[in-house]
Amino acid sequence: MSTAGKPASSSTVSAELRREVLEANLRIPQAGLATLTWGNVSAVDRAAGVFVIKPSGVPYDSLSEEHLVVVGLEDGSVVEGDLRPSTDTETHRSLYLAFPSIGGITHTHSTHAVAFAQARRAIPVLGTTHADTFNGPVPVTADLTPEQCARDYEFNTGQVIVDLLEASDQRAAEVPGALVSCHGPFTWGATAMKSLEHAIICEAVAEMAINTIALGAGEPPRHLLDRHYTRKHGPNAYYGNPPIG
Amino acid sequence: MSTAGKPASSSTVSAELRREVLEANLRIPQAGLATLTWGNVSAVDRAAGVFVIKPSGVPYDSLSEEHLVVVGLEDGSVVEGDLRPSTDTETHRSLYLAFPSIGGITHTHSTHAVAFAQARRAIPVLGTTHADTFNGPVPVTADLTPEQCARDYEFNTGQVIVDLLEASDQRAAEVPGALVSCHGPFTWGATAMKSLEHAIICEAVAEMAINTIALGAGEPPRHLLDRHYTRKHGPNAYYGNPPIG
Amino acid sequence: MSTAGKPASSSTVSAELRREVLEANLRIPQAGLATLTWGNVSAVDRAAGVFVIKPSGVPYDSLSEEHLVVVGLEDGSVVEGDLRPSTDTETHRSLYLAFPSIGGITHTHSTHAVAFAQARRAIPVLGTTHADTFNGPVPVTADLTPEQCARDYEFNTGQVIVDLLEASDQRAAEVPGALVSCHGPFTWGATAMKSLEHAIICEAVAEMAINTIALGAGEPPRHLLDRHYTRKHGPNAYYGNPPIG
Amino acid sequence: MSTAGKPASSSTVSAELRREVLEANLRIPQAGLATLTWGNVSAVDRAAGVFVIKPSGVPYDSLSEEHLVVVGLEDGSVVEGDLRPSTDTETHRSLYLAFPSIGGITHTHSTHAVAFAQARRAIPVLGTTHADTFNGPVPVTADLTPEQCARDYEFNTGQVIVDLLEASDQRAAEVPGALVSCHGPFTWGATAMKSLEHAIICEAVAEMAINTIALGAGEPPRHLLDRHYTRKHGPNAYYGNPPIG
Repeated sequence: MSTAGKPASSSTVSAELRREVLEANLRIPQAGLATLTWGNVSAVDRAAGVFVIKPSGVPYDSLSEEHLVVVGLEDGSVVEGDLRPSTDTETHRSLYLAFPSIGGITHTHSTHAVAFAQARRAIPVLGTTHADTFNGPVPVTADLTPEQCARDYEFNTGQVIVDLLEASDQRAAEVPGALVSCHGPFTWGATAMKSLEHAIICEAVAEMAINTIALGAGEPPRHLLDRHYTRKHGPNAYYGNPPIG
Repeated sequence: MSTAGKPASSSTVSAELRREVLEANLRIPQAGLATLTWGNVSAVDRAAGVFVIKPSGVPYDSLSEEHLVVVGLEDGSVVEGDLRPSTDTETHRSLYLAFPSIGGITHTHSTHAVAFAQARRAIPVLGTTHADTFNGPVPVTADLTPEQCARDYEFNTGQVIVDLLEASDQRAAEVPGALVSCHGPFTWGATAMKSLEHAIICEAVAEMAINTIALGAGEPPRHLLDRHYTRKHGPNAYYGNPPIG
Repeated sequence: MSTAGKPASSSTVSAELRREVLEANLRIPQAGLATLTWGNVSAVDRAAGVFVIKPSGVPYDSLSEEHLVVVGLEDGSVVEGDLRPSTDTETHRSLYLAFPSIGGITHTHSTHAVAFAQARRAIPVLGTTHADTFNGPVPVTADLTPEQCARDYEFNTGQVIVDLLEASDQRAAEVPGALVSCHGPFTWGATAMKSLEHAIICEAVAEMAINTIALGAGEPPRHLLDRHYTRKHGPNAYYGNPPIG
Repeated sequence: MSTAGKPASSSTVSAELRREVLEANLRIPQAGLATLTWGNVSAVDRAAGVFVIKPSGVPYDSLSEEHLVVVGLEDGSVVEGDLRPSTDTETHRSLYLAFPSIGGITHTHSTHAVAFAQARRAIPVLGTTHADTFNGPVPVTADLTPEQCARDYEFNTGQVIVDLLEASDQRAAEVPGALVSCHGPFTWGATAMKSLEHAIICEAVAEMAINTIALGAGEPPRHLLDRHYTRKHGPNAYYGNPPIG
């Protein structure tokens, strides 16, 4: 936990970014995605070269802004904060480095998404709920090798996702999440809140998919899925309204 | 979103109707039927030729009466409201036009009803809980064709339900809901609140049905189902009491 | 709804009994056993020859003591109350008449117990959670015949339970609940609260049983089950404490 | 319930220990692990030769510190308290006597862990969520014999766990929980709170495992599991932070 990189200024990251990271972390248990202290959200400030992340093992009901940890994007050193950052910090850093379009990352152990990760199955596209957000299955990584586990394990956990997506920022944007084999979901987005939203949707579609598979799942028509994805994404999107004050 | 149809008067729809539509929308997350901003309820005022619906993508905890959007029944234009109406607005309009007895419509992505929609299976009648409300299975539509997806997609989403019911208002009254293939449930009723109630029941019987199928479902006796449906509907109904003040 | 039997006195049933029936009804949604207005609890006063029951179709959050309906045990007439009693009133009456040891009855449409009822399967004894309360499987009735549905349907719904238990008060005491085929659970006990408790346990063991069956259920040892049942029931019971003031 | 062992002093156990035992018990229903009065937590004071446990059959919302019962570790006599201790008291005592490293014990009838116990299957290690806490499957005991049920039943319920672990304190530390066949989970830890945390995790991984098995479970790589267990346990652990004031 070197603090060598700590800047003189007290404003490494904006108060808004801190507030959003805190708020997104607190919504993990509110959304029913967390048991105990599990899960974490971060957001990156690429201009400052740092990201803000939850500390390791702190109960959600004790968590406040001053507990958040600011970490250097290049070397992973702690830039600000008295606590140890989440053990998953290096996984976040790995994803931020590989995918320039990502502004926030969420990791959870939500029940149904973990079940797919443990079964080493992608969450298949079975309907419009999935296609509204994910332009394809939520894929599952290869197992980490003994070497990847032995050294830089957490960074390599991000690396297997990067490898799965062939380091394509475009693919990361189209399907903003992946399952790490025998572990669980990581989701991302333009902001911390967007990454959290994708974690919530990932769990919802995983639960729907398990129930659908029990009833006998088929293949939805591609034109329906495309329609739903494009009404929420890209130049012709027409879903939603500006935020309400 | 033409506002050409906007009337001079400030009272296109009654305050009561607005209040009911707001209340019914707010009950979607309270009833556990919604993730994030998913779902919407509307109510129609046939005399005024308009319906009131939730705006697109607004979080439930920010939603208030002034956000609701009033839409013309004939042409789908926005008659009142500063926000974009739900993307599903044209689906509601299609159903209101086809089925004169409908006063309110609810759309959700509730977990177990969506599972049936994604498996392209009707929710079968397996007991009295279902028969109390639905006089037959909750049917599932055909897939939308590429043409139906390419143009007027949302209106056509209603049209596949209309086609499924052969445009029969009688059938719409007897089974007040349907599953759109690979999408999810739409339910309706005499009022917005009734349509919401049917959405809640649709999800409850879908969950029961999945569990029943896992245990081995049979065919309930027709005379039992008829008895339950008729004790709540039609001239000999004897369930319930007048509303309590 | 004859009120011919209405007594001059204003105290047909004690305030305590009313309060308990109200409280037990309100706990149905609190315990997660109810959707909308579904479910009902009653309690009997055998000395007065009446029982108190929830009115039909009243939302739980509007329900108060004065809405409860007092019904004559012998003829089913309304003795006190301005509202129509639950449509299931005659089922309760049938059970009170057949089983003298019963003081309270609860009916719900709880998800997993209904799934067993709809699959026409008894809830099997798979462990001590079940054996602590039910000295055997929670049995499922025969289907009601067309004749039983055509006339006195609700009374006959109780009758199929009575027939299932061969009208044995002893059996009703040992297994305080049954599933009506393609309908759902009725449970009973010495008091309204006890009957509610049995409804809660019935749902809990049904959910456990569905999951156990998915994993592969076996037959628990009889001596273990007997041990658990007898440590809570009969002359050698040693579970629990006097109520805490 | 001899009180012969009651000491003159009023401070058999510290106020802190009582408070922790109460708090841990109250968290059982908060964590969704309890129906009605089911479940109990205790903590031991080995210097004083006693442990503190929940009374039998008291509703959680009535429970306060003065209801807790202090029991002698050597003979099981009630040392302090006006109420009967939990019927599972002797099971706790048996485990405390066999495993010196245990400071607290939790017993629940949580739904999915009970399903594994009733299916007589260990909860398998299917991913990192499990491996973070349990260094191996959560094992299931042999059935209790008729003799073990006939006499000292509750003590023998602990004994079958002791036998399963071959009385190895090391094994109890590495996998801090076990399922009693056809009954349910017992978990333990250095403190009452830790034992509760393990009960929560036991239920969470049981639910994940049931869903994983439905999707088709495989065998996770051993090096991944070891990595996760050792990052939270042993000399090289690097998870977590000191408690936040």
